[in-house]
Amino acid sequence: MPNQYKKILLLSIGFQLCVSTLWAQDVKNQKVKQYIAKNDKAMLEEYIKFLSVPNVSSDSGHIPKDAAFIVQMMEQRGIKASLLHGTTPNVNPAVYGEITVPHAKRTIGFYAHYDGQPVNARQWHAGLEPFSPVLITAPLENGGTIIGPYKAGDTVNAQWRITARGSADDKAGVMAILNAAEAIKQTSQKLSSNIKFLFEGEEEVGSTHLNEIFETNKENLKTDCWVIIDGPRNVSGRKTIQFGVRGDVNMSLTVYGAKRPLHSGNYGNWAPNPALVLVQLLASMKDENGHVLIKGFYDDVVPLTASEKEALAKIPSTEETLKKDLGIHKPEGNSSKSMAELLMLPTLNISGLQSANVGELKANIIPSKAEAALDLRMVLGNDVERQQQKVIDHITSKGFHVIDHDPTDEERNQYDKIIKVEKEHGYNAQRTSMDLPIAKSITAAIAATTTEPVVLSPSAGGSLPLYLFETILGAKVISVPIANYDNNQHAENENIKIRFLWEGIETIAAIMQMK
Amino acid sequence: MPNQYKKILLLSIGFQLCVSTLWAQDVKNQKVKQYIAKNDKAMLEEYIKFLSVPNVSSDSGHIPKDAAFIVQMMEQRGIKASLLHGTTPNVNPAVYGEITVPHAKRTIGFYAHYDGQPVNARQWHAGLEPFSPVLITAPLENGGTIIGPYKAGDTVNAQWRITARGSADDKAGVMAILNAAEAIKQTSQKLSSNIKFLFEGEEEVGSTHLNEIFETNKENLKTDCWVIIDGPRNVSGRKTIQFGVRGDVNMSLTVYGAKRPLHSGNYGNWAPNPALVLVQLLASMKDENGHVLIKGFYDDVVPLTASEKEALAKIPSTEETLKKDLGIHKPEGNSSKSMAELLMLPTLNISGLQSANVGELKANIIPSKAEAALDLRMVLGNDVERQQQKVIDHITSKGFHVIDHDPTDEERNQYDKIIKVEKEHGYNAQRTSMDLPIAKSITAAIAATTTEPVVLSPSAGGSLPLYLFETILGAKVISVPIANYDNNQHAENENIKIRFLWEGIETIAAIMQMK
Repeated sequence: MPNQYKKILLLSIGFQLCVSTLWAQDVKNQKVKQYIAKNDKAMLEEYIKFLSVPNVSSDSGHIPKDAAFIVQMMEQRGIKASLLHGTTPNVNPAVYGEITVPHAKRTIGFYAHYDGQPVNARQWHAGLEPFSPVLITAPLENGGTIIGPYKAGDTVNAQWRITARGSADDKAGVMAILNAAEAIKQTSQKLSSNIKFLFEGEEEVGSTHLNEIFETNKENLKTDCWVIIDGPRNVSGRKTIQFGVRGDVNMSLTVYGAKRPLHSGNYGNWAPNPALVLVQLLASMKDENGHVLIKGFYDDVVPLTASEKEALAKIPSTEETLKKDLGIHKPEGNSSKSMAELLMLPTLNISGLQSANVGELKANIIPSKAEAALDLRMVLGNDVERQQQKVIDHITSKGFHVIDHDPTDEERNQYDKIIKVEKEHGYNAQRTSMDLPIAKSITAAIAATTTEPVVLSPSAGGSLPLYLFETILGAKVISVPIANYDNNQHAENENIKIRFLWEGIETIAAIMQMK
Repeated sequence: MPNQYKKILLLSIGFQLCVSTLWAQDVKNQKVKQYIAKNDKAMLEEYIKFLSVPNVSSDSGHIPKDAAFIVQMMEQRGIKASLLHGTTPNVNPAVYGEITVPHAKRTIGFYAHYDGQPVNARQWHAGLEPFSPVLITAPLENGGTIIGPYKAGDTVNAQWRITARGSADDKAGVMAILNAAEAIKQTSQKLSSNIKFLFEGEEEVGSTHLNEIFETNKENLKTDCWVIIDGPRNVSGRKTIQFGVRGDVNMSLTVYGAKRPLHSGNYGNWAPNPALVLVQLLASMKDENGHVLIKGFYDDVVPLTASEKEALAKIPSTEETLKKDLGIHKPEGNSSKSMAELLMLPTLNISGLQSANVGELKANIIPSKAEAALDLRMVLGNDVERQQQKVIDHITSKGFHVIDHDPTDEERNQYDKIIKVEKEHGYNAQRTSMDLPIAKSITAAIAATTTEPVVLSPSAGGSLPLYLFETILGAKVISVPIANYDNNQHAENENIKIRFLWEGIETIAAIMQMK
């Protein structure tokens, strides 16, 4: 056959394969959609019960109840569940389960975490409480109103949102994964892979013992690929796949003044003010364009590959929407870089500041100490220890004596500027190649559930300890976030838009059935 | 008589007058001392009851009870007491009384205030509460221990301290003034002047209505001189007279980021961080040597007179003691100026900082706002409005849009950097000449109660609205502080050393009987 005919034939076969695949996916997805429409009330009711169990990582009274709730959800769906532990006692357990499929050619794992960030209930909007979920019409900061608690049997409006700590980050992942498997079963469809489930309970405190859990349960947790269901979809609202995550680590800084707060009149101009010393230090770390001034801060960054650059260029710009929604006139940096590009760089963020009191409790004193919480996101090439050391070296270069405890009298008598630096546990970034066959299969499966282009991101802005999946379990890792972007993750008034829960179920069901 | 004889005669008369005056003072003071030794238990018991009445200026439930307690104390001492009001309703009243002395050649007023700074009970040491006075052996930060509540009849150790809000600042003033008058009466001694008493209830919120109270009660409040009993004696422990005060005014700054706190991973490097913007602004206000960089900040300062400079040079240096006690290695500034000189300059002090949370409540977010409390002390020549405007002009010069409310959506869409500046009520500095006859009489009277030199300070570091005494009442004003310097005034664990109460009574009794 002449070459030109060969080409036409191949193209024709390719086209037919493509159409039939899309059509097959579409049918599968339609069945999942019908299942959701029929079961939305029951799913929402169960989810609200789940959200009512407090889940702050450090709340050892409630965390076992969250794990037990998940075990119950799994067993109601016919999935045998067990709690996984590492070697350290009294650690929040992970919940594990699996579904074995005869003749499956591969095993896909689905990960989510059930623990949540700390809550300061006083900071939540009047009428909202972290663990008493209520429905709202839209974010309250943007004109939304409170509807109230969901009552069993009420019609579900998919445009509404449920508020609670964990509603988006990341009980939504647990909920969508388990309901996707159930939807496939109840619509008499077939899983194309063996499925494993892993729900972690320590993600929000840095997944401190996930390595132990992996080491101890290595055989159980073997898969070809782990799919991470966590975080928000792109701001455009399009479905999103992330092929990597930034690393993350916290540091706490405390600067000391006099041993006790002093009358600002009797000592003002003489006693050193730790709040001033701290702000001078912090101001020296970053310029007005968001560029970190710490020596070597960007040095380790591994450059993006050609496909990563291409994918990045295709990510839709949502900056104008975001600016309007968030009330921002000028982004940090205001540089020539897009938001997508900025998320591919390491960060230095002041996540908290405190010295004495402001507002009604303020008094005319010179404070005795000033504290800052820093969080550092890291990208491929950065290393936790090395990144923290750069910050410490910068502090030292500014004339501080760095200690890891409250200063002794001897230290106070010896040094001009004393700072306590508390280095916390953290982890490095991870990235998977977009060019792998498993990456392409997942991309195709998700693309078939939506009429819009799927956003392919080389790395999420957020963090998960995904390097552990590679290094200990030898598996590939790909993230498929399902939450709405404006979910107030990690902050007060956290919420999930109900439509995103339903679409999350469709997405996950497509991966579970992919070619 | 040849000139040389005249000189000898005059010197001789002068010497005899001086000796007889000192001797007379000494006898008077001995009688007061004996009175204190005999009545210490009863005085302490009454004082503890007084301190048990909460006195935060804004606590309108308790403030009338404080005023009523003072009225009762005065009436028990045979002094008719009344409450003074201005024209604004529902304002904390001042308590007034007087003792008229036949043929007195002058009238001296004694002022103290009975209200206290706000309290954050959680910041107080375990075992101490703001309004449950207990005895301690020494400051708890410096190895002191808690003895417990004082029980009626217990022996009083004058080296111990009483802890409570207001114990030093400034119920001590009320207590010492009333007991000094009573000691003179009970020891059958004589007042040399008519005496007036004025106890204010709004000093810690800037004496907002003292002008009205003065205007409304101008005739009652007429004196030759008001003696202000407030604040601490010099750090050396020596008795102290202050011929002026610094002015004081507060400002609150709020910098805005996105409308809601954001996930620091999903937005880090793109969303502006208000904590960073605030620290950059604050850092630009002062250099590392404590010098304020705001344009014209020191321009208005009136230079010291020759006698003020001389007095200043004689103030004992207590910096080494203070450094050791406070755990400070290098004072702010570390300049060639002494602490006494630094207190003669205006200040810019960061009295509080807050953005999101630190410590256990911290979360990986980009905060939505950051707040700072500033307090500005002013010296002779500075003006409240002008000084605040210099700060605002500086903020504007750094590219901020300054508003006095939370930003609207329109403002957010229009400006890069938005700051809310809340200007509070404040007042200017005041200074009295040390060379006036009344200044010299008071100095001599106090000198006679102590074997050490009296510290004469041109101005206290702290603030009181003393300009009102001059401008409305046409009286001179001189301050005689009586508290120990390490009293934690305005902060947690406020305390008064009992010996300073007793010596305060002696000091005031000497002024009441002075030539």
